[in-house]
Parts: sequence; C-alpha cells; structure tokens
Amino acid sequence: MTEAKAPKTNPGNFFEDFHVGQILRHATPRTLTEGDRALYGALYPTRFALYSSDDFARACGLPRSPLEDLIGFHVAFGKTVPDVSLNAVANLGYAECRFLRPVYPGDTIATTSEVIGLKQNSNGRTGVVWVRSTATDQRGEPVMSWARWVMVRKRDPEAPAPQTVVPELAPAVAASALVVPAGLDFTDYDFGLAGEPHRWGDYAVGERIDHVDGVTIEEAEHMMATRLWQNTAKVHFNVNAREDGRRLIYGGHVISLARALSFNGLANAQMIAAINAGAHVAPCFAGDTVHAWSEVLDKAETPAPGVGALRLRLVAARPEAASGPLRDESGRHAPGVLLDLDYWALIPM
Amino acid sequence: MTEAKAPKTNPGNFFEDFHVGQILRHATPRTLTEGDRALYGALYPTRFALYSSDDFARACGLPRSPLEDLIGFHVAFGKTVPDVSLNAVANLGYAECRFLRPVYPGDTIATTSEVIGLKQNSNGRTGVVWVRSTATDQRGEPVMSWARWVMVRKRDPEAPAPQTVVPELAPAVAASALVVPAGLDFTDYDFGLAGEPHRWGDYAVGERIDHVDGVTIEEAEHMMATRLWQNTAKVHFNVNAREDGRRLIYGGHVISLARALSFNGLANAQMIAAINAGAHVAPCFAGDTVHAWSEVLDKAETPAPGVGALRLRLVAARPEAASGPLRDESGRHAPGVLLDLDYWALIPM
Amino acid sequence: MTEAKAPKTNPGNFFEDFHVGQILRHATPRTLTEGDRALYGALYPTRFALYSSDDFARACGLPRSPLEDLIGFHVAFGKTVPDVSLNAVANLGYAECRFLRPVYPGDTIATTSEVIGLKQNSNGRTGVVWVRSTATDQRGEPVMSWARWVMVRKRDPEAPAPQTVVPELAPAVAASALVVPAGLDFTDYDFGLAGEPHRWGDYAVGERIDHVDGVTIEEAEHMMATRLWQNTAKVHFNVNAREDGRRLIYGGHVISLARALSFNGLANAQMIAAINAGAHVAPCFAGDTVHAWSEVLDKAETPAPGVGALRLRLVAARPEAASGPLRDESGRHAPGVLLDLDYWALIPM
Repeated sequence: MTEAKAPKTNPGNFFEDFHVGQILRHATPRTLTEGDRALYGALYPTRFALYSSDDFARACGLPRSPLEDLIGFHVAFGKTVPDVSLNAVANLGYAECRFLRPVYPGDTIATTSEVIGLKQNSNGRTGVVWVRSTATDQRGEPVMSWARWVMVRKRDPEAPAPQTVVPELAPAVAASALVVPAGLDFTDYDFGLAGEPHRWGDYAVGERIDHVDGVTIEEAEHMMATRLWQNTAKVHFNVNAREDGRRLIYGGHVISLARALSFNGLANAQMIAAINAGAHVAPCFAGDTVHAWSEVLDKAETPAPGVGALRLRLVAARPEAASGPLRDESGRHAPGVLLDLDYWALIPM
Repeated sequence: MTEAKAPKTNPGNFFEDFHVGQILRHATPRTLTEGDRALYGALYPTRFALYSSDDFARACGLPRSPLEDLIGFHVAFGKTVPDVSLNAVANLGYAECRFLRPVYPGDTIATTSEVIGLKQNSNGRTGVVWVRSTATDQRGEPVMSWARWVMVRKRDPEAPAPQTVVPELAPAVAASALVVPAGLDFTDYDFGLAGEPHRWGDYAVGERIDHVDGVTIEEAEHMMATRLWQNTAKVHFNVNAREDGRRLIYGGHVISLARALSFNGLANAQMIAAINAGAHVAPCFAGDTVHAWSEVLDKAETPAPGVGALRLRLVAARPEAASGPLRDESGRHAPGVLLDLDYWALIPM
Repeated sequence: MTEAKAPKTNPGNFFEDFHVGQILRHATPRTLTEGDRALYGALYPTRFALYSSDDFARACGLPRSPLEDLIGFHVAFGKTVPDVSLNAVANLGYAECRFLRPVYPGDTIATTSEVIGLKQNSNGRTGVVWVRSTATDQRGEPVMSWARWVMVRKRDPEAPAPQTVVPELAPAVAASALVVPAGLDFTDYDFGLAGEPHRWGDYAVGERIDHVDGVTIEEAEHMMATRLWQNTAKVHFNVNAREDGRRLIYGGHVISLARALSFNGLANAQMIAAINAGAHVAPCFAGDTVHAWSEVLDKAETPAPGVGALRLRLVAARPEAASGPLRDESGRHAPGVLLDLDYWALIPM
C-alpha cells in the first residue's frame, strides 16, 4: 500500500483561517421530505396542529402543512459545523435567528455564512469567530438567518492576531422584525382541533406554564435525530470520544424535545418566528428524563390577521429542577436545568 | 414572575363531565404519509404485499397501496385519549371496530366521539364511560368507527350519579356488516408475489397457526411508535411515571407487532376489516421477546370478487406461553400471554 | 381447537429442492419512498450530495435525487432470503453485483433468481447453491443483478447428489462492464456543495484513506434498518435465537454504516456502480464501535462526461483494528476487522 497523495479528510478551519467578510459556502444541500416529518414525530412528542394536518394549515391560509420550523433550523445549522465549528472549543451562543419562510416537503436547503467578527483570546491559542448564516431554498429565497459565535483553536499559536471586530447583536429580535408567513390568517382558527382554548389574550407577561410531562431519552433516539440533521460531530455517536465514555446529546435534540413538550399549555403557539438566544446550561445524556416549562417574556401584535406573538422562555430540566426556580441565589442556572431558550412564537389573537 | 391567569394544561374530563349524547370533537387532525409507512415497516416486521407494493395493490383493484390498517387505527384511537381517558383508571374494552375505507398517504384523519353509555360504580369514586368514535378523512368520509369503554375517576365523589345507560354492543362484527373496500378484487391474486400459497379454503375453523418468530423489544422502538400515533400518555415515556421505574409499552404496539409476525402463516390475510374485541392480558416491557400465534374462529364469504373473510384470534405471548394453551385450568389467560385479539381479515378465496 | 389442515409456515428450500436452471420468483415486491430515504439518513451518517439534494442531482444530469444504491441493494437482496437461504448454514459470498439503473422514490422493486450452480458437500448433509438474482422495477427494467452462493442443508441426507455445476464468476466486475446512469454528467460538478475538493485524479492506486469517525451501534438501530429491508432472519431480532443471547447485526447494516462513514475522505465517490466481493469477517453486535477505512484498488475512465471510476476496498473495523493492517502475518484478517468489501464508485474526473 502506498502513501496517500494528500490527506483526504477535512481538518476544518482554524482561527487563523477566518477573516472578516469571508463567505463560507457550506456543503451538503438537503431536500426535506415527508420522511423527515414522520421521523420528527416519532422522535419528539409534537402535536402542533399546523404541522400535523394539511387541512388545518390550509384553513390558516398556508398552501399545506409546513415542516416543523426546528427541522429547518437543525438542518440549516448542521451545515455550518464542518466549516465553522469542527475545531471549536465551545459553542458560545446564537442570536438574531429569524424564520423567513416556512419550509415545505420538497424544498432543498443550503446554507452560506459570512464571517462578521473575530477576536483572539489573550492566551493566544484560541479566538472567537462570529458568523452570520443564511439558509436558502432551491429558488434562492432565504428561509432562515442567524448569527452564532464559537471559540475556535488556532492551528499555530504563533500566527498573528487579526484586528478585533466584535459585531453588535440584538439581545432579542424586535417584534417589528418578525416575519409572518405570507397568507397566514388566524381569524377562523379552530381551537377545538388545535387542542386548547388559550389565545394570545389569555397569556400574561411573567406567567409560568408547567408542561407536566417528562420523557426519558434513549441513545438510539438522539443519534437518529442528530444524523437526520447531518450533524456528525463524534461526541454524539462514539463512546470513545469522551473520557467518561458517554455520548453527549446534541443540544438541538433537547430544544426539539422541550418545544414538543410545550404543546401541553402552549398548543396554540404554533409557529416559531425567531430565536433570540439559547443557553445549553448542562450536558444531557441518555437516561435523563427531560421536563419543560415556559415563561411568557413579552407580547406583541403583528400586522397579519388574527396573529399575535408571544416571546417565551423555554426551559428544559431534569426532574429535580422541573418545578423549581430557574436560577439559584448566586444567579447561576439551578442544577438540573439543561436548556434556557428565548424565542418568539405566533399564536391566534 | 407573576401567577398564571388560569392553568393552561389540560386536566382532562372526569366522570361527571360526560353525559349521554355528548359529542366530543378531538384534536389534533393528522395527515398520514409515506413517512408513516416507512417507520411502520422499520418498527414492525410487516411484509403484507398489498401494503408493500403499489403495483400489487393496483393488481388487486385499489388505486395504490394503502397504509396499513393499524396505522389509521392507532392514530384515530390516539386522538380520543386526551378527552376520554386522561383520567382513566382502566381501559376496559373495545368492540364493533369496523374499517370503512382504506387510508392512503395524503389523507388527513380526524376523530369525533359520542358518549353512548354511563354507569357510576358503587364506590361513588369512579364510573364507566362508553363512547362510539368515528374517524373521518379530509372529505368527511368515515374511515373507521368503534366503541370503547373506560373506567374514569370522578373529580368530586359527592357529584350525583347520572342515569345508568349501558349500550348493547355486539360480541363480534357480523360477517354481513364487514365493509370490503370499493374495487377490491382478488380474482387474479398473485400468491407467488404475496409469499404464501394458502387461500381462504385452506384454513379450517379451529386451526391454530404458529407464527414461529420472536422479537425482543427495545425502549426506543416502542416510544417512537407511540409518539407516531401522537399518544403521549406518560407511562410509556417517563421512567418516573410508575413505581417500578419501568415504561409500560402501549398496547397497540403489541397488536402491531403480533399482526406483523402473523405474516408467517397468514401472508394472504391482507386487510383487517374489523376488530371484534381485544384484551391486553398482561403488561409488556422492553426486553420482552414477543411471539404470536393465531386461531381461525370463523369463516365467511363476501360479495367482492374472490374475497373471503377469516375471523381470527391473534395471540401475543412471551416465550413461555408461545406454544402452550391460551388459558389455564381456571379459565384465566395463561401466564406469559400478552394479547388476545379477535378480528376479521380479508383473504383471497 | 382442531389440527391444522396443513402447516402454513414456510419451511424454506433445502438443497435437494434446487436444480440448475430453476427460476425463483421472490415475494414481496416493495415500493420505495422518501420515507426510506429519511430513515436511511437517520440510521447512517450519510451525506453524499447526490442522494441528499434534488437540486444537486439535477445539476448532475439526473431527473432528481435517487435513493442510496444500498437501499435498493438491501431490499432486493432481502427478497431472496426466504427462498434461498432460510436453511443456509453459511452465506459464502457474492460477486458480479452491478447497479444498472438508479432507484427513485415511487419505484417498486421485485427480485427473481436463477439457480446457476450446485455442488453437494462430501459430508452428504449440505451443499452449495449458486444463484444469479435480478431486481426489476415496476416497468420490468432491471435495476440490479448479482450472484451469490450459500451452503444449504439437505432435508434428507440420503437424497442423491445432483450433477455438480460450478459457475465461473469474475473476481471483479470489469471497468468496461460498469453501467453509468443515463444522463449522468459530472462536467459542472460542484465540489463546494459536495463537501470535498478531491477528484478522480487526486486518488492513487494503493492509497489508504482513514475515515476518522466511529459510531457505537444500538440494538434499536440495527433492528429498524433490517426490518426496513424486510429481512426477518431471527438471529437479528430474538435474544433467544443464539446460544449467547446476543442479536447478530445484519451484515448489510455494517456495509451501509461503513459506506456512510467513508464520506469523510471520499465525499465525491458518489455512486456505487458495482460490488465485486464482500467478506463479513467477524460478527458485529450492539455496543460495538465501528470505524472505517478505504484503499484505492484500481482506477478507470468511463464514457460518461466527467465521470471516472474508483475501485475501492472498504474496511469496517472495531477501534483496535481501525488503523492497523488488514491482515495479520498468517494472512488472516486482523482481529477487529468486521467487513472487507470491494466495490466500484463513480467520481468526477
């Protein structure tokens, strides 16, 4: 056997490979289908009527039932991993995530990113990279855009530091910047078929909603979900990838699980319009039982007929933190809290 | 954080919330797709040709391959849980389940129920509720109807007892009441492609068929199946929901598994026309290995060309009861028996 | 309960049931769908762009994205099991497997086999059966053909031996016999979207490519995959089927897993054109972590625009053999090697 002509496997980008203004065109475009919807429904206990029934969606002014917003999110986000975060030490955050068009079966999603910020750390061995990513469909129409920032290793600690550029990112998407899908009309919304009677006016800022149920996670489930998004980071799949021999569950799996559990109390918070911020507070492993609760953070009207918006905090937690406070006396997230997500949902007025 | 304006999660109906003649319109309509078919085939070892091949179905007079009858059944049945059995102490039985139209990918199923009987128990704390449920498709055509009865808790033991109404339900659907799908024609049925040569005339009343194979069940599998039917009863998903820390497998999972195993010996019993009765004799848990056997209970002709009907007892059992008698000397189901189902299937003459 | 009229379950064919020239028409035809694609993507970490995106496939001259070649292979192959290998003592090998047409969602696959060789073993109790199988689609067009040989038990050791016929099978499909799908054109191939820059000319015969990642297998995953191919051999599903209480993983599961892992380094080896040979060197069980590496065995041009072919050895191995030699000093496969597969892939020039 001869030597390789050149290494064929992707080493990923290191900190010094990025420069502000750089455009990254990510592989692999992916056509989404009814198969993805069925698997999503097998992996998460979701029952939102708009994503469950073509008839219900048409009665709300859409051409048919779109795919759950988080399917598009996980797929679009996953595309950025090989170019942005293969050498990441930490995923630091995301912001300004807006859902611009519903994604339907048959749509093909591709993602590009622009580097919008760089800051080398004082240790000289790592740096923070900010990118703004946009997912487009097969017509080139943007379906989603978001910013994220990650801490990335340098290949060569001696490489010179780039000029520091730190982008300004909004702490939350302004209500006025939310995009309501063309045609969406909740005027004749059928609360009976949707499963709960609560409309926009029934929710108060500060209200906390316990979503009651808990789900114990299996290894096969989180791995199947994570593969579906073509996210192949080895910590999720290989028991030898971490010193403790445990497979870390992809953070997006916990988001989707918590969002599905939130049906119980937020059945009419049908569509996700934006994700403002998200903190994956603690690692989650197979065997964990995940509960969820929500807090109403803000309310807004929209120009679309009958469509209001709720800004919600969605918290996923193990049983010991499922009904307690979000933070302890020191201000830190309470032990057992897994996820603290801040998003906007569309709901009938 | 302020207090909730009103509790948002669904407490379910209690015994005193039901009255005879009451119509319950259930959430959430669900569009079924090829994704559901694929998952069904990944979760159960099914090989019935009519549900496996569009070509085979067309040769039998159908427009294309319908979805397995039990997919429609599980989805339609699951819709009734939040309104009928959230506060159930026990699922007592079902009867008169008739399959009225095959369900195809793209069909949207919704379910309504009518309360047809009520009987308070002498303890004053629970009562039995009988409902007749009908599932309809997006054209409003009924695809399935059945009766079931459950024992439900009272919210207030002091609430007065309703007038007792106990509906009369047939011990089995009469052969003359079976609905054969429009167009179904088994005259040119291809036994070679179907996998077995046995036709209606080859089966004798009283005959017992051992389906040979056994399947050991995993947690991820039964949970994925149960979510697919949007059945979110917590005993199936949460290790903390029961005192023994075990997740109870949804009874419908055992039905589908046993029906799939019955291919081996009943490959031509293609379509389920009715379910007469079903007893979930013992709980089933992950790690159990499930076997199945069938007994021919009755035979009937139908008006459709080449189409006969077999009334079958389908028994699921753990290995220790897989080849023994159904009942012990006392008349009770033998230990290890999990399911005793009575149904009608359509088979070529 | 009366006795059965005749045993209804399939005993399978024994050695003396086969004769050279015999045609076996296998059950059950199967329509493949987007649901199968989604499940394939959930079970294997595959990212080949041609099978991920309709847009990408159209840019390569195909009408839309075909289903992964191994989906068709597993389904077509599985059909032969009940007639050919139910009483097999050993699967001895396969050869001359050619992919003749891509399979698309909606296509219905059926398989027939011809017995092309027979040789009774000297012990008189078993014999080797060679069959050549062809899978066709709903138009009767062949989509795949291959030869395999298995050692099968005799029903009656006293049955006379048939005349020995041993077919000649090529050690590898000749490059000139590879079928390139009609229309396939890699002239404007988009390496950026495909995920790697390496083209045909970048690979050297003898080069070894380490695919880096490893995946730890779960029971639910391999059983779901194997059911999807309607392969119901009990050793894969029943903990009581083997003396050691372990469920053996279907060899095809390891092939698909290794092929998906090979994306990392062979992202542009898009289509499988032929499988020359395959050895399932050691059994694989849940809990095993599977790695993969490839060796370039040969290179060839094809008449299609921009399309070259690589002959590749694909090796799946547990961690202890993931980076070592294929064979030990004695010439045997090294401990830990699971699969040694020899195939042709199409790749842009």
